[in-house]
Amino acid sequence: MNAAKWSLHPQLAADTFVVGRFELSLLLLSNDANYPWFILVPQRAGIREIHELTEADQTQLLRESSQLGRTLMTAFAGTKLNVAALGNMVPQLHVHHIVRNEHDPAWPAPVWGKVAAKAYEGRQRAERIAALFAEIGPGFTAMP
Amino acid sequence: MNAAKWSLHPQLAADTFVVGRFELSLLLLSNDANYPWFILVPQRAGIREIHELTEADQTQLLRESSQLGRTLMTAFAGTKLNVAALGNMVPQLHVHHIVRNEHDPAWPAPVWGKVAAKAYEGRQRAERIAALFAEIGPGFTAMP
Repeated sequence: MNAAKWSLHPQLAADTFVVGRFELSLLLLSNDANYPWFILVPQRAGIREIHELTEADQTQLLRESSQLGRTLMTAFAGTKLNVAALGNMVPQLHVHHIVRNEHDPAWPAPVWGKVAAKAYEGRQRAERIAALFAEIGPGFTAMP
Repeated sequence: MNAAKWSLHPQLAADTFVVGRFELSLLLLSNDANYPWFILVPQRAGIREIHELTEADQTQLLRESSQLGRTLMTAFAGTKLNVAALGNMVPQLHVHHIVRNEHDPAWPAPVWGKVAAKAYEGRQRAERIAALFAEIGPGFTAMP
């Protein structure tokens, strides 16, 4: 167990809001209102790749990712979910979950490098988080 | 079992070479020599999202993805693996596995939309596939 030594990478902390946590992963909302863009970060120190997690942790991450994916596609009526673990710039393992639809500003391209991030304003962030909470189901703990 | 009705999406067939298969997924090599770029395609008809697979298939896909990821990072001495299920343009579920390093032409950006694809020429494709085969281990069947 190395969860005790785990802490969120400063770049992820700067670019996101903490929304809650599953058993393994912290759930973040990316500060880009262009898309419902959530990020799972397994709370394990020193891990850069999914295949570096233990088998049990990999299975748990998959379970959390699928629960989140189903939730997001329902809550935000998405056309397609983009799931990606890239990490070229932020080495701490984090898995993007981005709801895409034909009306979003980057469609059908991947979101990276396409359109400048648009910081949340007004009530939109609270509304997105509330839509997520309404669908997320068990195994998730909201964080203020 | 809907594997019988499954067939590879024509766009994936056009952009890649078939390398082999795991128990669940076909393994493709993207025809872009800029990066060692492999793609897993679960052989299940009508599936667009990872969370639409059965739990058993999700677990198998994870197993194949981790085996492939470990293999690629060893075979190609990668700095970072990019794993992504996007599918905005090709709806058939497919999972990119792209070995990245500081000397590749898109680093540190994601590969999409950054640099034009560079088709394989000469022996480079056979060499990449041979490097993969040397490391891949059990559960994988090479295809000519």
